Amino acid sequence: MKYPNKINKVYKKEINYSNRGMDLENIINEACKYYLDNDIAVIYKKPTPIGIVEVDYERMVIKKGYFKEPSTLDYNGVYKGKYIEFDAKVTKSTTSFPLSNIHPHQIKHIRNVIRHQGIVFLIIYINNEYYLFKGEDLISFLENNDRKSIPLDVIETLGTKLNYSLKGLEYIKGIDIAYKELI
Amino acid sequence: MKYPNKINKVYKKEINYSNRGMDLENIINEACKYYLDNDIAVIYKKPTPIGIVEVDYERMVIKKGYFKEPSTLDYNGVYKGKYIEFDAKVTKSTTSFPLSNIHPHQIKHIRNVIRHQGIVFLIIYINNEYYLFKGEDLISFLENNDRKSIPLDVIETLGTKLNYSLKGLEYIKGIDIAYKELI
Repeated sequence: MKYPNKINKVYKKEINYSNRGMDLENIINEACKYYLDNDIAVIYKKPTPIGIVEVDYERMVIKKGYFKEPSTLDYNGVYKGKYIEFDAKVTKSTTSFPLSNIHPHQIKHIRNVIRHQGIVFLIIYINNEYYLFKGEDLISFLENNDRKSIPLDVIETLGTKLNYSLKGLEYIKGIDIAYKELI
Repeated sequence: MKYPNKINKVYKKEINYSNRGMDLENIINEACKYYLDNDIAVIYKKPTPIGIVEVDYERMVIKKGYFKEPSTLDYNGVYKGKYIEFDAKVTKSTTSFPLSNIHPHQIKHIRNVIRHQGIVFLIIYINNEYYLFKGEDLISFLENNDRKSIPLDVIETLGTKLNYSLKGLEYIKGIDIAYKELI
């Protein structure tokens, strides 16, 4: 998952933008490690689902496999006793987030987690910013719109902007704000 | 993960034992499906962690990979808003559960999840019975013993016996009993 190569102007004062252009998964993984090392939360990226076709059992080497479509989201874990799950999504568009980025299975799964009182959201990188966008807002948008994408202003209004620092992408701060009634 | 082939005597009245001898992962997966379909809990087996070495990107086929050692437990998800995580362990021994079945990383992870108020446990198949054994009891045993295995009577005393039915291995009932102060 790579960032859009949209940032062509390289001024010295814009160095931060190139940082922001880092691979989204990397800066989330950095944050997960920071939260784990500092005893703030226990959140891991799930392994990529692989279908294993052929194994050389003598050397314990996988000789053939294929990538399966994920039916859940990429990251999950526990924060203050609460179940947390989220996925990282990048869009090149600067005006809206295309819903084709989310598999139908994942939408079903988001509904399931909400119904069981888990905290579930997307981290969306759009227009040089990172947003925590709650699963509840996603479902409500899907139920009240026929649009194939979420306009940027909806994400700006409903989402919680996330900061990127040496700790990685600080999504726990976002959880504290977006779910303040639960945490 | 196969059951011990200890059951040699096949009497008609012992048919249940051969059912119990079903693959532990299968009957847990059955239960996960039942809980999901009946809107009781959302708990999945995590994908097996694979290190991918070589991919044929034209056909999107993995040509070489290896199995990584898991640093977390196999199943996790949400039940009544609570974070749930557990692993399935089978022992051939009928008298004790060897602690070598649990990787040091997994023990560290169990401590982490407990500290963050998650519900974390083992499902142990021993001596023809299934037990939910709480992470707290495991850590307390490790801290107070130099033994390399947990004696069966400790598992019988502290553990919660689980029933196997057409719904699979009913571990949610076990959670309701073992964590009644939390659920």
